Amino acid sequence: MQLILASTSAARQEMFCSAGIEAQFIASGVDEAALKAGFTGPPPALALALAQAKARSVAQAHPGAFVIGADQLLVCDGNIFDKPSDLAEAATHLRALSGRAHELITAVCVLQAGTVLWTHVESARLTIRPLSEAFIASYLAAEGTKILGCVGAYRLEGLGAQLFEHVEGDYFTILGLPLLPLLGFLRGLGALAG
Amino acid sequence: MQLILASTSAARQEMFCSAGIEAQFIASGVDEAALKAGFTGPPPALALALAQAKARSVAQAHPGAFVIGADQLLVCDGNIFDKPSDLAEAATHLRALSGRAHELITAVCVLQAGTVLWTHVESARLTIRPLSEAFIASYLAAEGTKILGCVGAYRLEGLGAQLFEHVEGDYFTILGLPLLPLLGFLRGLGALAG
Repeated sequence: MQLILASTSAARQEMFCSAGIEAQFIASGVDEAALKAGFTGPPPALALALAQAKARSVAQAHPGAFVIGADQLLVCDGNIFDKPSDLAEAATHLRALSGRAHELITAVCVLQAGTVLWTHVESARLTIRPLSEAFIASYLAAEGTKILGCVGAYRLEGLGAQLFEHVEGDYFTILGLPLLPLLGFLRGLGALAG
Repeated sequence: MQLILASTSAARQEMFCSAGIEAQFIASGVDEAALKAGFTGPPPALALALAQAKARSVAQAHPGAFVIGADQLLVCDGNIFDKPSDLAEAATHLRALSGRAHELITAVCVLQAGTVLWTHVESARLTIRPLSEAFIASYLAAEGTKILGCVGAYRLEGLGAQLFEHVEGDYFTILGLPLLPLLGFLRGLGALAG
């Protein structure tokens, strides 16, 4: 049974490898910005739409495979935050998130031959403590450009731990993919050893 | 300000290093088995007693330092599970945990000059799916002796992800130390940049 993760996210790939899931990793060519710009529904529906668009794009070339799509959105006070494009924007994001709670909405789906077999959306709630300008500057200097690939400009599994007051939600959901329900579905399919 | 973690747990040391916390790691010489055998209170009190015994043991030689002690207990149906001593015992533990929920109780404390400055206990609840004998055998063969250092015979951040149906609780608590409240306390002390 061929399993493909339609994602180039290093965190998701590492999660699959760590958990011993044998899958191919294939980047989708989806124009996420265009999809976001034209979307009118609530954030969980947008996360699912993005996950499905990625899976669908990869599934076209692999009609027999089970293709997993995933997406994660950061929402704070109704605003969706994209990955920062440079360190100045990362600082702007951290200032906006400072002293308040935000949601990480993570969507995952499994497609085969154009059919959506399964979907799951899960949210985590994270509270960032009030951050001083001096802290933001020294944090971004220490992390450097590696946080540009991270929504919210943090890696909770790295220095980002120093930003948080409170974190509430599933471990894997925060890392970028609700792994346990996905594994449960794949076991049900017979795609994983029981 | 000298910071010492009285622990040789690789997971805890990695958590400190990842979060950029500068600390020394010093093993305590505490006889945990003896302390457990003589203890009559409930599991959260035992976890705190173990954390404090470790910190106290290291603090004696470092009277000026802030010494952090930590402990984690796995409790299932009122029974406390120690780290398995060999793979046969690991299999016994997995059979006992199969198809049910258990708690990971994690305690942390900070001592200085014999005084307990701060304590925190946090629990996570994890549900292991019903595991077949064949799965337990192949899982233990794949993980090998590296899971002998792990309470419950699993590493959630590794192949252990395949054991779980559901995980509920703080990310860091599950990994072995409730990092965010500890960082909050250390910031309050002035031991970390704000």
